[in-house]
Amino acid sequence: MPFIHDDFLLSTGTARRLYHTYAADQPILDYHNHLPPKDLAENRQFANLFEIWLEGDHYKWRAMRANGVAEQFCTGGAPPFEKFLAWAKTVPYTLRNPLFHWTHLELVRYFGIDEYLEESSAQSVWDRANALLATDALRVWGILEKFKVRALCTTDDPTDDLAYHAQLRKAGLKTKVFPAFRPDKALRVDDAPMWNAWVDQLGAAANMDISSLARLMEALKLRHDFFHAMGGRLSDHGLNHCYASFCSDADAAAIFDRARAGQAAGADDHARFATYLMLHFGRLDAEKGWTKQLHLGAYRSANTRKLRELGPDTGFDSMGDWNQVAELGAYLNALESEGMLPKTILYNVNPVQNMAFATMIGNFQDGSVAGKIQYGSGWWFLDQKEGMEWQMNALSNVGLLSRFVGMLTDSRSFLSFPRHEYFRRTLCNLIGKEVESGELPDREDWIGPMIRNICYGNAAGYLGLDLS
Amino acid sequence: MPFIHDDFLLSTGTARRLYHTYAADQPILDYHNHLPPKDLAENRQFANLFEIWLEGDHYKWRAMRANGVAEQFCTGGAPPFEKFLAWAKTVPYTLRNPLFHWTHLELVRYFGIDEYLEESSAQSVWDRANALLATDALRVWGILEKFKVRALCTTDDPTDDLAYHAQLRKAGLKTKVFPAFRPDKALRVDDAPMWNAWVDQLGAAANMDISSLARLMEALKLRHDFFHAMGGRLSDHGLNHCYASFCSDADAAAIFDRARAGQAAGADDHARFATYLMLHFGRLDAEKGWTKQLHLGAYRSANTRKLRELGPDTGFDSMGDWNQVAELGAYLNALESEGMLPKTILYNVNPVQNMAFATMIGNFQDGSVAGKIQYGSGWWFLDQKEGMEWQMNALSNVGLLSRFVGMLTDSRSFLSFPRHEYFRRTLCNLIGKEVESGELPDREDWIGPMIRNICYGNAAGYLGLDLS
Amino acid sequence: MPFIHDDFLLSTGTARRLYHTYAADQPILDYHNHLPPKDLAENRQFANLFEIWLEGDHYKWRAMRANGVAEQFCTGGAPPFEKFLAWAKTVPYTLRNPLFHWTHLELVRYFGIDEYLEESSAQSVWDRANALLATDALRVWGILEKFKVRALCTTDDPTDDLAYHAQLRKAGLKTKVFPAFRPDKALRVDDAPMWNAWVDQLGAAANMDISSLARLMEALKLRHDFFHAMGGRLSDHGLNHCYASFCSDADAAAIFDRARAGQAAGADDHARFATYLMLHFGRLDAEKGWTKQLHLGAYRSANTRKLRELGPDTGFDSMGDWNQVAELGAYLNALESEGMLPKTILYNVNPVQNMAFATMIGNFQDGSVAGKIQYGSGWWFLDQKEGMEWQMNALSNVGLLSRFVGMLTDSRSFLSFPRHEYFRRTLCNLIGKEVESGELPDREDWIGPMIRNICYGNAAGYLGLDLS
Repeated sequence: MPFIHDDFLLSTGTARRLYHTYAADQPILDYHNHLPPKDLAENRQFANLFEIWLEGDHYKWRAMRANGVAEQFCTGGAPPFEKFLAWAKTVPYTLRNPLFHWTHLELVRYFGIDEYLEESSAQSVWDRANALLATDALRVWGILEKFKVRALCTTDDPTDDLAYHAQLRKAGLKTKVFPAFRPDKALRVDDAPMWNAWVDQLGAAANMDISSLARLMEALKLRHDFFHAMGGRLSDHGLNHCYASFCSDADAAAIFDRARAGQAAGADDHARFATYLMLHFGRLDAEKGWTKQLHLGAYRSANTRKLRELGPDTGFDSMGDWNQVAELGAYLNALESEGMLPKTILYNVNPVQNMAFATMIGNFQDGSVAGKIQYGSGWWFLDQKEGMEWQMNALSNVGLLSRFVGMLTDSRSFLSFPRHEYFRRTLCNLIGKEVESGELPDREDWIGPMIRNICYGNAAGYLGLDLS
Repeated sequence: MPFIHDDFLLSTGTARRLYHTYAADQPILDYHNHLPPKDLAENRQFANLFEIWLEGDHYKWRAMRANGVAEQFCTGGAPPFEKFLAWAKTVPYTLRNPLFHWTHLELVRYFGIDEYLEESSAQSVWDRANALLATDALRVWGILEKFKVRALCTTDDPTDDLAYHAQLRKAGLKTKVFPAFRPDKALRVDDAPMWNAWVDQLGAAANMDISSLARLMEALKLRHDFFHAMGGRLSDHGLNHCYASFCSDADAAAIFDRARAGQAAGADDHARFATYLMLHFGRLDAEKGWTKQLHLGAYRSANTRKLRELGPDTGFDSMGDWNQVAELGAYLNALESEGMLPKTILYNVNPVQNMAFATMIGNFQDGSVAGKIQYGSGWWFLDQKEGMEWQMNALSNVGLLSRFVGMLTDSRSFLSFPRHEYFRRTLCNLIGKEVESGELPDREDWIGPMIRNICYGNAAGYLGLDLS
Repeated sequence: MPFIHDDFLLSTGTARRLYHTYAADQPILDYHNHLPPKDLAENRQFANLFEIWLEGDHYKWRAMRANGVAEQFCTGGAPPFEKFLAWAKTVPYTLRNPLFHWTHLELVRYFGIDEYLEESSAQSVWDRANALLATDALRVWGILEKFKVRALCTTDDPTDDLAYHAQLRKAGLKTKVFPAFRPDKALRVDDAPMWNAWVDQLGAAANMDISSLARLMEALKLRHDFFHAMGGRLSDHGLNHCYASFCSDADAAAIFDRARAGQAAGADDHARFATYLMLHFGRLDAEKGWTKQLHLGAYRSANTRKLRELGPDTGFDSMGDWNQVAELGAYLNALESEGMLPKTILYNVNPVQNMAFATMIGNFQDGSVAGKIQYGSGWWFLDQKEGMEWQMNALSNVGLLSRFVGMLTDSRSFLSFPRHEYFRRTLCNLIGKEVESGELPDREDWIGPMIRNICYGNAAGYLGLDLS
């Protein structure tokens, strides 16, 4: 029996029945990821397994570095096959890391390869996978069809012209591709040169001169409108922790003016300005019925030397342990007090916040939409079997699992779609075990639809994307 | 087989034997709850299932709101049956939430109804339950007898005249009912109008004019004495986190004087004053051999709009993530240093504090009383199967489970007594599994009494209530 | 079947095979403990079971105090047998606490006693154990041989002359014994009298007058050199949390001068000075290829009265909940930025930091050494089955379990070596279960060596101790 067999991760008969009956055939709605719009628009063909699998994968780089592999074979200049071989040699050392499961799940689902990746199989895997990558079936569009990706949302800067998205809308691709609005740079008055350059870009995109805070907010609104016109219905923010330093319009304008004049904001002013804009973003989302995503708690770019050498997002980030509740609660409450709290999904990267976040959402459910405030699926380091179980258990114990909008890949790679399968197996395994132990009732008329909805239906209904 | 069957939650033969032999028939000592003394004294009869089940249950309201149910059907003006129906429709969406278990456990234990609550069964459940609520068996006293409630402690403000408790002492009820002393308002010099009104009430209750800090402390002592005379042996405090801003008598008196003159204390002075009074309360408890309960870490009234519309305790609270250790340790140490640390039970609402609290108690065990400092049972959001298991595992791993005073409902509802059964099943399930795996010894002469003691005997011995 | 049988804690057939085939016979490398060098050098003979088992064991004292045992029978003046009897009576109350497992594991492995310790067996256990303690087999050297202790590292102050270590090197003991460098007192400018006395001692040990910061650093380097010459390859630091208040040489020198003149540093200056020296220690370790251990987060000496009466390390410590990430990250980054980050092992005492620490190590893996930055085994309160599982699961999910340097006892007692067995059983149980469920592949050619390496090989390869 191959490692990845039909009933992988499904430890009970009920789990197996539930997965194969209700989960396996559901389409995918990957509502948050970092796939490159260019690759999507141009139906990229990948030259080899390195390009599609290792080129941008900081999970694998971290594992390789921890395994004593030199940087040359991670992000460095070694030839593709040598890098792939370094990865193949590392795989047997990743036992119990999600990479081991993902690797073999991806090899079998994309390439039909069901042997272990290790030094001895590396050449053969490389050759077979590369041959398949040369076919249309494993170009981007083929992949989207193969995995029944009904829709996906990329992550885009407000300054982006969304030209690839426009191209995609004309391309006749069955998968719907939407942009998502990620205005993190707008907050960065603490880094005046970077921020000013970005504000200039924003002005160019919005075709206006951004000489005042009011103009900045107007430009952001115009871009938000444009994303909306392009089908976008989600925004996204990546923050260490929420900001809740409320200030007056005048204070915010003064911070803007100083920053625009080149004077970087200190920590307090940065927090005030960020709070001010985050309220603006909340209102924009609320007005249009969008869903706001908050990704909170990552401790980023911990290694200054590597940041300088390799740039951000290269595998030198970890979990922060900032206190989150007071500011997150105050921010959500400020919007709720105005009647402008949008649908919101909270994601935490450190599991110590699981229960605090899972209970926080209950403070702002208003009965208008089932599951209006969501506790998002296990993110980043928590996107693994135990992390998913923690998230689902937390949500179940203090909220409604049945209203959960489920999985997203958050990935930069087109090889990540089987993460949805992995999530679904984990979900069905949890549920099945409890049906068999009698903790859940033997009511498949309830449980089957619940599983279907968590896999796809809830997200489809909740997000308001045009899936027609 | 009905969902709630004899062996519900008991996954091994040993668990089943332990539960049925040692746990099931133990009386209940519900030493902390929020039951209304008036209902107890007057042997309230409930008009219908709404009144006894939904009228004050913020757990259900939160689930309903998360399920997209409008406020009208939660706390609002819809007729009782419509609200009940809204709840019945929500029940199938609560799978894996403790509400699903509680609901069906309560239906079967009180009303003998062992079918699922859902839209199609709602009318029939309503009719049958209401018919039984019209009988003496399901008036308050009937319920107390049915569930073998040996004693219970309500939660009372120091200003309360305890008239219902006095009435109860004459009523010949077999269940002993005691007041517990909850002086949270005494600390609230940060809210001068509320605090002054309360201090005036306290003066009236103590029959004295409270014109100085010394008089306040004397009045509090008099009320503490009165509660003692009425059988009270527990106090209780609900705090975001412990206070440990020690100040002089003169400083505390100055804060008192300013607040009494209408000037609200700022955060620092509030902390000083609260610390000062909390030491006073600790001494009062220590002098009389009482047990102090500290409920720490709730993030309350997160939603200002709902607070204004619906008041507190309506389902808009969640878990805080304040650091707890340094101040909690300093407070306990201050009392210990004076030789005035009472028996104390620590409760945390956020499970990230489980291990810190479970180890903190060990710092102040002095050998005078077994389990003098207790780590309390899973509270609020943690009062569910996984939360109970976490609490018991934490206590077991770093302390003595055998000395644990066990379960309490903390409930406002007379339908909550089966939570003791739920706890006992969870306890026996944990223990039974480990006996069968060989992690616990096959020594029923140790394990049986341990279970009996956690269910009832430890609390009965520890709390010093007059159970005769 | 006795409680501690061949397959204790091994719940699957695979776990049993893995343990007995790959783990059981591995030697022990106990790279961090608090064993007294004098006892090692003098091959101490223990007069009775009290001396070897209870004399310095704060775990047992805490359990006894929680069980209502008076201090007289813990640290006090009661005769040895009475204290032992008090412990024996407590044992049945420790069910589910690791003490219950440890106790019976130690009784059987050292003394061949496989009955339960309780009041009725106390006299017989006492007599039999004492008889064996009178033989060479249970003197210190006999114990080290019996448990195949290949090497161990004690914990030593930089002022220590390591005379016992010198004696040991000549003694022909098969077990290699190395010192480890623990300079915690060097940081304590906040306690000027204690610190000055210690600096004087250091000056004496280094044979120099320490009249300036530069001289202090030189003296520390000389002692570090001396420890190196004596075979030491590890340093160790016990801190509430890491320090990251970077200051100039001049600032540090000024703090030194004031403290040397008797003026204790305030909190900010203490943090600056500690940061300054911790960077120095990091450089010393990096230069010589040592491994630095950081033990972070203990809340120590919480009970002032007991501290005064009994001194430190007597069972009045618990878990702190300080935020750890920002300062830990900044400290490691500062060394990394200089190219002077040594091999490092991070230990946390509060499990809320597990995932943050397990991800932090990934920020500083540089490919030079497999597992260069390690996430250390469950420490103190976490040195128990569940704590070990949490640590291994955290490391597995976000790092490489295969590169883990494994278990250490951290113990003051010669009866603690079976903790390695306990750890190995726990490891094999985890792995075996997942092989059987199909979560791990059926590749014993990978899994067997991984287990062997975690038990011994990884530590032996990583630490660079002279094991020849």
